[in-house]
Amino acid sequence: MQSARAIVCHDTHANGGWKMEDVGVRKPGDGELLVEMVASGVCHTDALIGGIPGGAAPIAFYPRVLGHEGSGYVKEVGAGVTAAKPGDPVLLSFAFCNKCAICKNGHYSNCNDFNDLNFGGPYRDFQLASKGGEPEVGGQFFGQSSFANLSIVRECSVVNAKELVHDKKELQLFAPLGCGIQTGSGTVINAAKAKPDDVILILGLGGVGLSAIMGAKVQGQATPVCCRTIIGVDRIESRLKLASELGATHTIDGSKLGDKTLVEAIREVADGIGPTIAIDTTGAPPLIKAGIEAIRNKGRYIQVGSAPFDFQCEFNMFTFMVAGKSVQGAIEGEAYPAEFVPQMIKWYREGRFPIDKLIKFMPAEDFEQALKEMHDGVTIKPILCWS
Amino acid sequence: MQSARAIVCHDTHANGGWKMEDVGVRKPGDGELLVEMVASGVCHTDALIGGIPGGAAPIAFYPRVLGHEGSGYVKEVGAGVTAAKPGDPVLLSFAFCNKCAICKNGHYSNCNDFNDLNFGGPYRDFQLASKGGEPEVGGQFFGQSSFANLSIVRECSVVNAKELVHDKKELQLFAPLGCGIQTGSGTVINAAKAKPDDVILILGLGGVGLSAIMGAKVQGQATPVCCRTIIGVDRIESRLKLASELGATHTIDGSKLGDKTLVEAIREVADGIGPTIAIDTTGAPPLIKAGIEAIRNKGRYIQVGSAPFDFQCEFNMFTFMVAGKSVQGAIEGEAYPAEFVPQMIKWYREGRFPIDKLIKFMPAEDFEQALKEMHDGVTIKPILCWS
Repeated sequence: MQSARAIVCHDTHANGGWKMEDVGVRKPGDGELLVEMVASGVCHTDALIGGIPGGAAPIAFYPRVLGHEGSGYVKEVGAGVTAAKPGDPVLLSFAFCNKCAICKNGHYSNCNDFNDLNFGGPYRDFQLASKGGEPEVGGQFFGQSSFANLSIVRECSVVNAKELVHDKKELQLFAPLGCGIQTGSGTVINAAKAKPDDVILILGLGGVGLSAIMGAKVQGQATPVCCRTIIGVDRIESRLKLASELGATHTIDGSKLGDKTLVEAIREVADGIGPTIAIDTTGAPPLIKAGIEAIRNKGRYIQVGSAPFDFQCEFNMFTFMVAGKSVQGAIEGEAYPAEFVPQMIKWYREGRFPIDKLIKFMPAEDFEQALKEMHDGVTIKPILCWS
Repeated sequence: MQSARAIVCHDTHANGGWKMEDVGVRKPGDGELLVEMVASGVCHTDALIGGIPGGAAPIAFYPRVLGHEGSGYVKEVGAGVTAAKPGDPVLLSFAFCNKCAICKNGHYSNCNDFNDLNFGGPYRDFQLASKGGEPEVGGQFFGQSSFANLSIVRECSVVNAKELVHDKKELQLFAPLGCGIQTGSGTVINAAKAKPDDVILILGLGGVGLSAIMGAKVQGQATPVCCRTIIGVDRIESRLKLASELGATHTIDGSKLGDKTLVEAIREVADGIGPTIAIDTTGAPPLIKAGIEAIRNKGRYIQVGSAPFDFQCEFNMFTFMVAGKSVQGAIEGEAYPAEFVPQMIKWYREGRFPIDKLIKFMPAEDFEQALKEMHDGVTIKPILCWS
């Protein structure tokens, strides 16, 4: 066991169950690395999973360590690991099996074992220092549990950043690339394959939504031409303003619609007939419904935000069919992190992907404040720094 | 007015409202042709639309002439028509405006005016001979109302067949290409863009479903390699047998599942994890539900059969999203008839698209018998001959 500090969730966040504590971390096994984290972005999925009462869903159990936008330096590697060596800087992303038929077809983010590898287990990696004994605290959330300054990481979750980053500060800045930022921009580029002629709607302008705006602006790996219309919807003025700075051609404040419906307001700025692509990053049922309705004939609606677990998507099948619409689910921006993370870093260095406008560095101890600022919309993407 | 005969629907078919009658047809106006029909395929959509009580839906009104898989010879053309000249053989398909943003992007079958141009109006083209006076009977169903031996046809619905057919018999055989057969095969080729590695499921083996099987076998315009697994589901033995002859690698008799669910039976022959593509040609809610459930992660479900007008498609959004599934509506096989009809004829001449196995020629007078045989599954695709 190696001594470390971690944000241990003993219960839901609402019940005050998250605590910074001294822990022990077991040694890395086959295909695992021990990583000394320098940073971890905070994502709504942390709050979501750490907000479900234990036992209320198969993926809800305590105690555990969350965190899934980590970056750090490799301290030790288990048997068979080739992705990185001790001392290498690494950027972390989601886990996948790399063996199933879905992974073999290159759809890693829809791996047949995605739920188990990213939410599941419990994989007991941490010991409470106050208690000692065998590890009882769940780790490997998204293959990494990066809400700890030292953690066991699955090899599949590792992007070796040796050739990608210049210093620790950059390694911290790039921490959220492997989840929130990849999810937003990847959805536009990999899942929607948006083109210059597309009219794209982004519902919700948090970290994922604003990254989608950046993705629509960068628009494809080859062409530097953005989608001709990029519409951002939110209810927080500062986010709408930032969306415009990042490339939105139109913004809609959902709290100031007057006597228009949201669908009417969207269509008004989308050639009168609706967007060709709509991406929902909120998971909020009324926005999901509006998005599916708003798209034009042959339009594509993509679900990215986590809807409530019991929410049934519902639409009239006959009119949907005649309109030739489609509804699609996408996670992690359908990205292969080993290729997409370097791509995003390249855009950043070219000045075309200003992720620094989204983030705020905070000491890991201030995680409560980080969650609050993210929830209030004051901070888009808090990055907890472990050193 | 020119004298003609037509199957006039005065009320739903169930109420005995369809009658062969003497009618008068008005002269063709701008952008219209007067076509002497030689044949019209019978499609479930005729039965569907002619089965709704008048006024129960905006597209349900009487009296009208249905029929939308017509073929014939041009008798007269209105002003501005360039698609064909008097005497030219023509194959007919759906109508589209060719002006809206959707048509301009090449998605003609999802034209913004599709409902009005294909189901709508009423466009009063026919006069009842027994009554005389102004035309009161609706025409231009799918731009053609081919259940008449003489009918007004919109220019957009015309595929000039001068270079495509050798004689009247062929013109009759090819009548259903522009709807049922194009819908089935086009969905596989244009909408699903099925590839050799795909595992494709076809729910329902009527004219559309069996054409989808042929499409999966032909599989793409360039490659003569079929999808590696083609699964057909129906409850009628003769259809399952025909599906195997046409290229299905597996068939499932939905009436003989034993203690398996349909989803289990499908997965069993689909690598254990489900098809990569599922196409429902039935519109039956239990099959729609099973199809969406059965597809593997990243699988695509395509709705082609008309679901009941009030049917709400429903699925759990969170699991759908994590699985990366998609649900899509497609009509008319997303085909551009002027290109796709000649393509199908080419495949037929190469012996790779044996549409003759699906059809049965019948005199137009026997339309009641044709509907019955299609409904019972004894005949896949009846073609009513007008001469």
